[in-house]
Amino acid sequence: MNKLTGWDDTIIALATPPGIGAIGVIRLSGARAMEVVNNLFPSKDLQAQASHTLHVGYLKEGENLLDEVVLSVFRGPRSYTGEDVVEISCHGSPFVQQQVLDACIRQGARLAKPGEFTQRAFLNGKMDLTQAEAVADLIAANTTASQKAALHTIRGGFSENLKELRERLLRFSALIELELDFSQEDVEFADRGQFYALINEMQVSTGSLLQSFRLGNVIRNGVSVAIVGRPNAGKSTLLNTLLNENRAIVSEIPGTTRDTIEELINIDGILFRLIDTAGIRQHTTDRIESAGIERSLAKIRQADIVLYLFDVNGKKTDLVKWKQEADEAGLRYLLVGNKIDAGDEAEARLQFSQFEPVVFIAAKQKKHIEVLRERMVDMVLQGQVQTENTIITNARHFHALQQVAASLSDIKAGLDRQLPGDLLSSDIRRCLHYLGEITGEITNEDQLDYIFSKFCIGK
Amino acid sequence: MNKLTGWDDTIIALATPPGIGAIGVIRLSGARAMEVVNNLFPSKDLQAQASHTLHVGYLKEGENLLDEVVLSVFRGPRSYTGEDVVEISCHGSPFVQQQVLDACIRQGARLAKPGEFTQRAFLNGKMDLTQAEAVADLIAANTTASQKAALHTIRGGFSENLKELRERLLRFSALIELELDFSQEDVEFADRGQFYALINEMQVSTGSLLQSFRLGNVIRNGVSVAIVGRPNAGKSTLLNTLLNENRAIVSEIPGTTRDTIEELINIDGILFRLIDTAGIRQHTTDRIESAGIERSLAKIRQADIVLYLFDVNGKKTDLVKWKQEADEAGLRYLLVGNKIDAGDEAEARLQFSQFEPVVFIAAKQKKHIEVLRERMVDMVLQGQVQTENTIITNARHFHALQQVAASLSDIKAGLDRQLPGDLLSSDIRRCLHYLGEITGEITNEDQLDYIFSKFCIGK
Repeated sequence: MNKLTGWDDTIIALATPPGIGAIGVIRLSGARAMEVVNNLFPSKDLQAQASHTLHVGYLKEGENLLDEVVLSVFRGPRSYTGEDVVEISCHGSPFVQQQVLDACIRQGARLAKPGEFTQRAFLNGKMDLTQAEAVADLIAANTTASQKAALHTIRGGFSENLKELRERLLRFSALIELELDFSQEDVEFADRGQFYALINEMQVSTGSLLQSFRLGNVIRNGVSVAIVGRPNAGKSTLLNTLLNENRAIVSEIPGTTRDTIEELINIDGILFRLIDTAGIRQHTTDRIESAGIERSLAKIRQADIVLYLFDVNGKKTDLVKWKQEADEAGLRYLLVGNKIDAGDEAEARLQFSQFEPVVFIAAKQKKHIEVLRERMVDMVLQGQVQTENTIITNARHFHALQQVAASLSDIKAGLDRQLPGDLLSSDIRRCLHYLGEITGEITNEDQLDYIFSKFCIGK
Repeated sequence: MNKLTGWDDTIIALATPPGIGAIGVIRLSGARAMEVVNNLFPSKDLQAQASHTLHVGYLKEGENLLDEVVLSVFRGPRSYTGEDVVEISCHGSPFVQQQVLDACIRQGARLAKPGEFTQRAFLNGKMDLTQAEAVADLIAANTTASQKAALHTIRGGFSENLKELRERLLRFSALIELELDFSQEDVEFADRGQFYALINEMQVSTGSLLQSFRLGNVIRNGVSVAIVGRPNAGKSTLLNTLLNENRAIVSEIPGTTRDTIEELINIDGILFRLIDTAGIRQHTTDRIESAGIERSLAKIRQADIVLYLFDVNGKKTDLVKWKQEADEAGLRYLLVGNKIDAGDEAEARLQFSQFEPVVFIAAKQKKHIEVLRERMVDMVLQGQVQTENTIITNARHFHALQQVAASLSDIKAGLDRQLPGDLLSSDIRRCLHYLGEITGEITNEDQLDYIFSKFCIGK
């Protein structure tokens, strides 16, 4: 049954991407899901079938044959949403799928809103809010790192961390609230030493979760990279070499705009967004870049990482000037000496050995590209090893955790000043509130609507 | 088991359209389908599970978590292909799907060729060739008519027609072959009167199937319509009125090119392709059309139907001239008197009553558009009612049936000339051959490869 009122309707949506394919799947969820499909399925009585079973037959609306289908039956609560769920595997014609959708709607189903299936799963207690949000992250995943981070959260990794902290804090909170009832008697049920230790422990956990967000942000959004350098340094050759070997598998996500002059590559599970590559492709003889860093600084500043490509067989003056300006501007950059194989490699390395950080490659001959790739990954991870630990990838979680951290500081300050329980209590409640907001134990409808509106329809 | 040798491999493909969605389905078929997935599915032993059941769990390659999935298990021969089939319902991230595909391939599956699942279904006797071809037709269906025709064939409607005829002919063939063994004795096992009656009956059936192809072609490919007329006759208004109410649900079919200046509308389940509408939109003041029919004749001749739009408040001279030239050119056209509501409607109708075929509308006011639509449909159907009868939509079937018809004529001529059994026999065999070729009882590998190569991958 649904937690919210007015919710007993049965929802329906196409769950597979639109377009022609071998099959398309239409998903229904709700109290009447079985009945709606059963009315269109003369071959057997769907309502008499066990959960987790498959049924082949024809969908018919009256005398009107719609499709030959396979039905998947999941009985609530053993389903994705916790309600009765039927999935209709149709032939992959958008026209036929529309006919099937329309027929189900005439039987009383209504079109689902974006994310409404997952929203029901959350409201019916099948998952908490971090898990629900990770479902959308997994669907958008385009690297191993984003896939792993999402799956870790879907499996409840993040929730468990928070749940344990919250429960321990709740126990202290209860004891301190109890003190308030006996405020006349000046008793302390909550051991202040133990409480102080817990707050310390929570600060460490929260701190490392907050720290993980820098990497989490990279995992979620990728790292923007600008490749700059004088004309003929080999920028477009390097771009093509990187793209040929590492082009990321990505698709357009409906509702997001992607900068069309951006190319995506996937190195060791990290997404690098090569910005302004159109510029590289089209204007290799453009004067702008050779005119110095100043004029393209705005563009370069957008980049998380700048690769400065130079010809190891050319003069050092440009390189010296660029490095100086980049240092002044506070850029994170990597100097990339190209065309290392044109002369004596050892000699060239020696000549540029005073520059740091630097790597040497031959873009055209695809030589030492793996060294460049490693250095790019190192610049992102900077010693942050990707472990099985929770990595915060979601800005909502990050902001709530910042509030948690702030309230922990306040509690600690209160303990230091030996404040009485009633004064500590409000900070504890604030801390509990933000912890609960992350997992969805505390929610408001607007926030939920906002979160689920970002999902695709059918999920 | 497979009919062809070297076929014991297990095939895999994404069965849903590419791109981001709530879910994506990966399908495996073959002797090792269960084993391949089982090796990636630690939560339970898939090979111990019953057919037609669903299983939720995580896919894992070693320690590497791939996705949380739902598996559909179909044990051969109770499956689409007749072999063991597993469908993996993944999260709808193309990246995740690729990871799952790759992991299954490492376990020994190989990527399926286009149509290979259906080809296996055919070769394993799950369907005949007409049914297999209709699967592709259903996936490409974009009107009720094409949907119905494909489903009729999938259900075996066409095969049954042919099977009965072929079996009756086979019985006579056997008797006549028997006569050959007793050729010295001048006996007739096959009653020539009954045989003559059968051939007559077969000619009627074959004739009506051949005739149905004109409609079948329309159902499959749609009807091309050119809207022509003087500038300001209201062509673009009519186009918009038709499009607003009847725009067809279509998607690009991979591998087909669509004329970009074509708009598709769906009236009563028939697809009309409005050709050269870009011309209508962009060149309403173009002199070409007003300069008479000659110069645009080539374009207009491509159309199955021409709608000549004229202003009922204008002069008749253009109309008279156009109709005369259209009659001479042998065009199939409909005269469409527009702006009927600008003056006295009855008067206008009377004035143009000598012209045939004619309808009167007010495109801007959307008046009498339903009459125009009915007339367009009538022009296509021309009394051919869409019944539950078989409609030939496939050119391969049409051409084979033409050969059947030709051999029936030869048999009949032979009977008329009272030819002996041995001379009749080769024509009978030819007839049986072409009947068998339609349903795939007689095939060659090249033909099969050609037919299935037109399917999408995953079907």
